[in-house]
Amino acid sequence: MTDLIGQLTLMPLVASGVGLLVAAFFYFRVKSLPEGTDTMNLIARYIREGAMAFLVREYKVLAVYAMVVFVLLFIAFNGEGTGLLSGFCFLLGAFLSLFSGFVGMKGATYANVRTTQAARDGSKANALLTALDGGAVMGLCVAATALLGLGVLYMIFRTDPHLGTVLHSFAVGASSIALFSRIGGGIYTKAADVGSDIAGKVVEGIPEDDPRNPGGIADNVGDNVGDVAGMGADIYESLVAAIVAAMAIALTAKTQYVMGLFTKVPEGVDPSFLAVTLPIFLSGVGLAVSILCIFGARMLRQNSPAMVLRAALVVPSLIIVAASFVLMPILGVSQAVTGALGAGAIGGALIGLLTEYYTAWGPIEKVAEASKTGAGTGIISGLSVGMESTVYSLLIVAGVGFAANWVMPAGMGLYGIALGAVGMLSGTAIVMTVDAYGPIADNAGGISEMSELGPEVRAITDELDAVGNTTAAIGKGFAIGSATLTVLSLFSAFILEVNHARELAGLQALVLKLDEAPILIGILIGATLPYAVGATTMIAVGKAAQAIIQEIMRQFNEIPGLREGKAEPEGTVIVDIATKAALVQMMLPGSVAVLAPVAVGFILGPAALAGMLAGAVAVGASLSLFMANAGGAWDNAKKFIEGGGIEGHPKGSDTHKAAVVGDTVGDPFKDTSGPGVAILIKVMSVVSLLISPLIATF
Amino acid sequence: MTDLIGQLTLMPLVASGVGLLVAAFFYFRVKSLPEGTDTMNLIARYIREGAMAFLVREYKVLAVYAMVVFVLLFIAFNGEGTGLLSGFCFLLGAFLSLFSGFVGMKGATYANVRTTQAARDGSKANALLTALDGGAVMGLCVAATALLGLGVLYMIFRTDPHLGTVLHSFAVGASSIALFSRIGGGIYTKAADVGSDIAGKVVEGIPEDDPRNPGGIADNVGDNVGDVAGMGADIYESLVAAIVAAMAIALTAKTQYVMGLFTKVPEGVDPSFLAVTLPIFLSGVGLAVSILCIFGARMLRQNSPAMVLRAALVVPSLIIVAASFVLMPILGVSQAVTGALGAGAIGGALIGLLTEYYTAWGPIEKVAEASKTGAGTGIISGLSVGMESTVYSLLIVAGVGFAANWVMPAGMGLYGIALGAVGMLSGTAIVMTVDAYGPIADNAGGISEMSELGPEVRAITDELDAVGNTTAAIGKGFAIGSATLTVLSLFSAFILEVNHARELAGLQALVLKLDEAPILIGILIGATLPYAVGATTMIAVGKAAQAIIQEIMRQFNEIPGLREGKAEPEGTVIVDIATKAALVQMMLPGSVAVLAPVAVGFILGPAALAGMLAGAVAVGASLSLFMANAGGAWDNAKKFIEGGGIEGHPKGSDTHKAAVVGDTVGDPFKDTSGPGVAILIKVMSVVSLLISPLIATF
Repeated sequence: MTDLIGQLTLMPLVASGVGLLVAAFFYFRVKSLPEGTDTMNLIARYIREGAMAFLVREYKVLAVYAMVVFVLLFIAFNGEGTGLLSGFCFLLGAFLSLFSGFVGMKGATYANVRTTQAARDGSKANALLTALDGGAVMGLCVAATALLGLGVLYMIFRTDPHLGTVLHSFAVGASSIALFSRIGGGIYTKAADVGSDIAGKVVEGIPEDDPRNPGGIADNVGDNVGDVAGMGADIYESLVAAIVAAMAIALTAKTQYVMGLFTKVPEGVDPSFLAVTLPIFLSGVGLAVSILCIFGARMLRQNSPAMVLRAALVVPSLIIVAASFVLMPILGVSQAVTGALGAGAIGGALIGLLTEYYTAWGPIEKVAEASKTGAGTGIISGLSVGMESTVYSLLIVAGVGFAANWVMPAGMGLYGIALGAVGMLSGTAIVMTVDAYGPIADNAGGISEMSELGPEVRAITDELDAVGNTTAAIGKGFAIGSATLTVLSLFSAFILEVNHARELAGLQALVLKLDEAPILIGILIGATLPYAVGATTMIAVGKAAQAIIQEIMRQFNEIPGLREGKAEPEGTVIVDIATKAALVQMMLPGSVAVLAPVAVGFILGPAALAGMLAGAVAVGASLSLFMANAGGAWDNAKKFIEGGGIEGHPKGSDTHKAAVVGDTVGDPFKDTSGPGVAILIKVMSVVSLLISPLIATF
Repeated sequence: MTDLIGQLTLMPLVASGVGLLVAAFFYFRVKSLPEGTDTMNLIARYIREGAMAFLVREYKVLAVYAMVVFVLLFIAFNGEGTGLLSGFCFLLGAFLSLFSGFVGMKGATYANVRTTQAARDGSKANALLTALDGGAVMGLCVAATALLGLGVLYMIFRTDPHLGTVLHSFAVGASSIALFSRIGGGIYTKAADVGSDIAGKVVEGIPEDDPRNPGGIADNVGDNVGDVAGMGADIYESLVAAIVAAMAIALTAKTQYVMGLFTKVPEGVDPSFLAVTLPIFLSGVGLAVSILCIFGARMLRQNSPAMVLRAALVVPSLIIVAASFVLMPILGVSQAVTGALGAGAIGGALIGLLTEYYTAWGPIEKVAEASKTGAGTGIISGLSVGMESTVYSLLIVAGVGFAANWVMPAGMGLYGIALGAVGMLSGTAIVMTVDAYGPIADNAGGISEMSELGPEVRAITDELDAVGNTTAAIGKGFAIGSATLTVLSLFSAFILEVNHARELAGLQALVLKLDEAPILIGILIGATLPYAVGATTMIAVGKAAQAIIQEIMRQFNEIPGLREGKAEPEGTVIVDIATKAALVQMMLPGSVAVLAPVAVGFILGPAALAGMLAGAVAVGASLSLFMANAGGAWDNAKKFIEGGGIEGHPKGSDTHKAAVVGDTVGDPFKDTSGPGVAILIKVMSVVSLLISPLIATF
């Protein structure tokens, strides 16, 4: 009877296996490439070692955290008889995230210097290829390990009554790592960036990538721990959460509604289980398509990098929708599924393009123009750009939700919204490849500057870096958009699970009415949490940056000859300070995210928790989009001026200085607080889903 | 049978009458005071005429708007037989708001120069008294006209089946004026402020209050149209909306629940109507207490202004709670009502004190410190202060909601929350008095500088002005806190009204479940609206400020001798530009607020509208608090540095310049966009409440 479902589950496992093999191939190909001069080699080694040192220390902290959660899960779920199982699934979800982050970051730190070397050989196409292959290691690892873990668990437990707890625990593992990696990495990267920027440029008058700047290595390490490892864990958890939410909704859906999804249920198949299997199967299809598209992008390497990368973000989604269109009738499934999937895939591409518009086109010219009358007007302009882009981005997400709900048969609207999130994340492997390409290209530029290579090398790495900045902004819009849709599904899954548990306990279903006091109060409490994480992460970056500034100034004062370039800066000391600061400062915002739903759920009950999640989603989704896009706009407005975009106001002019202020504010906005807030709402939803059976009878 | 209820309704009418008489007394007392030198007189006349010119032109725009709404209401409610009635109540609500704004602003523009003159006579106590009396004209007018209008309508229609429509239409009238006055006034005041600041200080190197700065008059006009007329209309509408929401909830509450409110229902009285009457009766008590406290504050004028004003904000609330404690047993009403009222009153005072802490104490020193390393770090620090304060402010509001719900008997929790809002606003007359005191003191300082009076005069006006800055921040926290609570009540009233209308139409009650697709999509749409208003108002200030900067620079270039102080600037031209720009630019954000609920309500139905309101409340309350408090922190951090707060970094230093950047960003944050977003959610809720019977059967 489960033959078809078994085959459908095998598909993502096969795709994962292939994905991991391809990732290994890229990893070793990149590693075998030439590394360039001794200086380049040394700088790259410092960056790699700094990044690895951060990861290892972060892993130690996470190990303690994981043990604590493991014990708590064991205690909490022991009554249900799933204490150990839940704990191990949590550890598996966490371990696979760490594994993909570790391998991916190692790949990226091999690729950066080899990209510089390819540029030194004068081949833009080879440089692009190296950076892309390095990014693909991360992209493929993220998508493949997520599907591998979920697929294996589903294969084993698909007929087990505790399937829900198994999947939710895995998702909590993924979320926990994402939370700390993203926030810790975000604090690290921006503290190093802002710190070396201010101490270098403002205090000592030298650029951040200057070989004399002691913060240079830490700045490059930060790109890897924040934008590669942090972003990877973030996307890994989004993919896991989207699939788990869709599966959880299908698990609790009533059979009479599920039947509406099928034109003809294949013989001997339980339709509910087919609906549960579809999200992971379709994600497997997405991974297979993404692998093919990565090879396609490599073949196009002779073209303009901007064109190649933009195509890589948009085309795979369309192919996946087409594949679904062909496959669904074969499975006897209504094209409504393709419709919901397609709404998500197209919505994701639209959000990406919209984000590009707001952070790379007309709006940034307005921000640059506004900087002519000073930093104040430049900041105001960037804030309004960020707000405006938030409006349209969220309207697209709402539109995807509306369409995905609308195409579905009666009673399956929430499943449709969850499939929309799966569709938006179906191209995860390639989106993450392009995302990880960004910091590799950025590092390649940093290494060429610190190694004092010629302007022709720098010209190539600059072009690759510029494209990377745009794709980074696109990736962020994509990540927050998909996170919002995922959270809506998780939220629905949470309420369904609560009522499912109440049904099992013989209790009446909980009707969560919008106009009840606990819900309204929950909404207000939920609204505060994104601001709590926003405030603590901004303060964290500020504190860590201050510590770095102090140390850089100490080195310039105490190391004779440093200012003249005759002595070496002690870059590893800065790396050490940034690592410690990031790990300490990530505790408070991280704890808020995990503890808030537990506290409210157990003290005020499931209704207040549902209200809190609703408030946190509304505020968190909008606040994170606002911060990410305002930050992107300031960053690129500064670059626009540096590129001579405003006649008579070149680099170094007052207008440029005003734009630099915007960039400084934008740094923690777009790379620490914005993503931190987005992950907050995901973690809260996943944790709520996990504890739903425990608080259901409150 | 209605004897007691009639007496209870008479109470607010009597209090209003007394309030208006006292306001008239203060008005003529202030007007009879000496005006000082010819120069002072001339400047004051320019300010008064500029402010009146703005109001008159704004009224013309509003007249067109009111006519359109009148016709729409007539058409919409004609089927219910209340077309004309609804239209006239709307006009009455709007007219009374305009009336109190007009009289209050006239009082303020008489008081400013007379405060300067009192300072010139060397009497700080008289200067404080003049500014306070001027503010009291506004404060008393606002509270008295609101209660007068509501009281008369309630007296006439209290047994009419259309009482709901009557009250809601009155509230929509109040909201509409508040919306446009607040946004239009906000754009005007900050465009003039930022424009004259930048053109003066940055471009020409002269202070904003320098007699040579052509923007000086417009800047002072702006204080009046924004912080007096705009703020007054805002608070007027909050008071009206809070009372109406509480009455509406009581109107639809089931009798068996209402009975729980009473220890002993007075003979011959309908308990439901007693519950409907309580909110307006208690507001009448609040007005009476406030009048007494205004006289009390006047008697304390020999003390430190800071002490007098802080006491004026906190003490009346406590007296009102005590009065309720005495009165409720007499009426046979449970002390639960006093509890809910007290939770609101104490919560309001707590939010005020919290706001003072974040915008006047330790946090602003941190912002000032952070400005040492540049404008970027100063901005980051201010943003994090704003975010942190948002968390605690909203938690207080949530706590008030929790307590007010908790003390109430079963089924009356939402009524309790509404009473909490009434309690928070019970001291409206005195809070608004202190609020309007701020711009009067600010103007007094401006006039003394522009008239080139001596430093001893300036010392007195500076002290009064500094206190005004703090009370302005407190008032804003208070306004947004009470707005949030009011909106929660309006929101509940909206859902109750929808279901009441469905019941009358023989339809099943609508259960608005949090996990239904239309609600979730509505929440996302609602989340975009505060950002839409935030973006459009920020852009509006930017555009209007640019126009003013251009004109100021033109005057300096084309008027010979202006720079040397030998020729007069053409201040009225700037006033004219600011007026036009504000009136044009307020259209877009204003329309969004009114049209969004109508469009969503009629197209997507009441469920999506409820979701939208919930999303808008969560995002709007937090975003407006964040903007208001961050703006307040930057403003006072700059003043802290100017007062020599950071040794070695005086006025004019790089640190000070960095702080000025924060202040520039903070200007539209705290005085345009923040209040604009707060009023958005109030207007949306009131409009939704009004249209609830029309969309209920969707």
